[in-house]
Amino acid sequence: MKILCSDYRVKPGDTVQLQTWPTAVKRLYGSKSDYEALLQTHVEELQRLQSLLYACNQYAILIIFQGMDTAGKDGAIKHVMSGVNPQGCQVFSFKHPSAEELEHDFLWRTTRCLPERGLIGIFNRSYYEEVLIVRVHREILAAEHLPDEPGNAGTDIWTQRFRSIADLEAHLHRNGTRIVKFFLHIGPEEQRRRLLERIDNPHKNWKLSLADVEERRHWNEYLKAYEKCLAATSTAHAPWYVVPADDKKNARLIVSSVLHETLRGLKMSYPKLSAPQRRELKKARKLLNERPS
Amino acid sequence: MKILCSDYRVKPGDTVQLQTWPTAVKRLYGSKSDYEALLQTHVEELQRLQSLLYACNQYAILIIFQGMDTAGKDGAIKHVMSGVNPQGCQVFSFKHPSAEELEHDFLWRTTRCLPERGLIGIFNRSYYEEVLIVRVHREILAAEHLPDEPGNAGTDIWTQRFRSIADLEAHLHRNGTRIVKFFLHIGPEEQRRRLLERIDNPHKNWKLSLADVEERRHWNEYLKAYEKCLAATSTAHAPWYVVPADDKKNARLIVSSVLHETLRGLKMSYPKLSAPQRRELKKARKLLNERPS
Repeated sequence: MKILCSDYRVKPGDTVQLQTWPTAVKRLYGSKSDYEALLQTHVEELQRLQSLLYACNQYAILIIFQGMDTAGKDGAIKHVMSGVNPQGCQVFSFKHPSAEELEHDFLWRTTRCLPERGLIGIFNRSYYEEVLIVRVHREILAAEHLPDEPGNAGTDIWTQRFRSIADLEAHLHRNGTRIVKFFLHIGPEEQRRRLLERIDNPHKNWKLSLADVEERRHWNEYLKAYEKCLAATSTAHAPWYVVPADDKKNARLIVSSVLHETLRGLKMSYPKLSAPQRRELKKARKLLNERPS
Repeated sequence: MKILCSDYRVKPGDTVQLQTWPTAVKRLYGSKSDYEALLQTHVEELQRLQSLLYACNQYAILIIFQGMDTAGKDGAIKHVMSGVNPQGCQVFSFKHPSAEELEHDFLWRTTRCLPERGLIGIFNRSYYEEVLIVRVHREILAAEHLPDEPGNAGTDIWTQRFRSIADLEAHLHRNGTRIVKFFLHIGPEEQRRRLLERIDNPHKNWKLSLADVEERRHWNEYLKAYEKCLAATSTAHAPWYVVPADDKKNARLIVSSVLHETLRGLKMSYPKLSAPQRRELKKARKLLNERPS
């Protein structure tokens, strides 16, 4: 089945009501082996494109994963990106900021981890937490010691933060970083099932904390924060994709399709040598033939 | 064929004469598909052990690759580590140090990139360059602005550096980092073939610089620097492996076997929950069952 990436993209300027974005869609694969073959094709194509990205050395790719706990961020990274050369791919997970990080502006800690040209950088959670968890838990904001000027120029802090994010992403785009953002969208009942599974499976229960379960009380507040965030920050150069993620396999196929489409869209080719470089190559060959070893 | 890792290990305190260490050994695989199946088995086992390493969160793994140009460092990383979850694996390549890095002691820039507990960190070249290329090209040392005290306490700068490295590695070991170091050992004729291939293959010739070819003049000086380095810094807790690397496939099988043996040797198991953690889990289950969604 053809996966239409644009179906999942949030159009710039649109408002977002997440109850109208499904958490489950028709299966994009037949059997399990069908899924595996499809994913394998995507992964191999990503491998090829990543080598080209590295050789080209013009673009960096920044992939951002956001979603509720258990939405499948780690799994998507593991299943879609395993197989890609780890030398060309860096993953950073952002959990509680450190005291040092809190002493800086909210974009500082992630900016230090941005991918260099030629590489794929993956953020498992990101600066977007600053307009999500911080919006739901306003007490976190207090710990950031911001100057006491709320409503700077008539706007609230969230509008200001959206502006900072949009400006950063536009700057990165102008300098060769291509940004793709995924919101893995699951329903509360699916989350409940997954949390129970973490409790039941002894190999997984180290992952669970009571806090994750208690955080479910804020489900609707999170959805509202996501809605505002997705609407304000999905741009032509840094689009958000809302990925129906109740079915993990479906979600991974959508993610890998979008990545594939994004990389292919760069129309990269292997670097062509300049005339002086070709002369250098000729000289190198001569040297190698003169002194065999 | 059983791969005996200890065959390739430099024993602590031994002197090293690299001409007695082969660059080619009997093939460890039959056909190409036999090689692929063997490597695949190793990679799957590494995947499993890496998940366990992450869950365990007690050890970090630091893997260092050194070798002449074209020895196969990038290829070994790509082929052995692709397939491992990139979220648990970080690769850092160290090329020319920046001006800022040169203003610091020679261990500073790599120390910032050491893997955190639970992760595998790979150094593609490393602080060992400081006793290899710097030893062959003494003029680089001048740029490091060291205090004018050569032969501090009667020892030369290389002995001092070996000491600094051994102390750092012992410290890391005491704090949970397990270190494995590979010298990919190729002969000059094999390097010549590989350099010519980079010239002939248009997808590879962006990788070649004339300087790489000219550097071959220093082949024997490099070998001598490696010999001293391997002898001085192969310890029980941070062993060097001299990997015969004229055959890339052989080399990858040896590398993956050593990694496999190292990780398996940690005898890790999934974390067991404490009594308070078990109570928390019970409470979480109760909460999830009370409020279905």
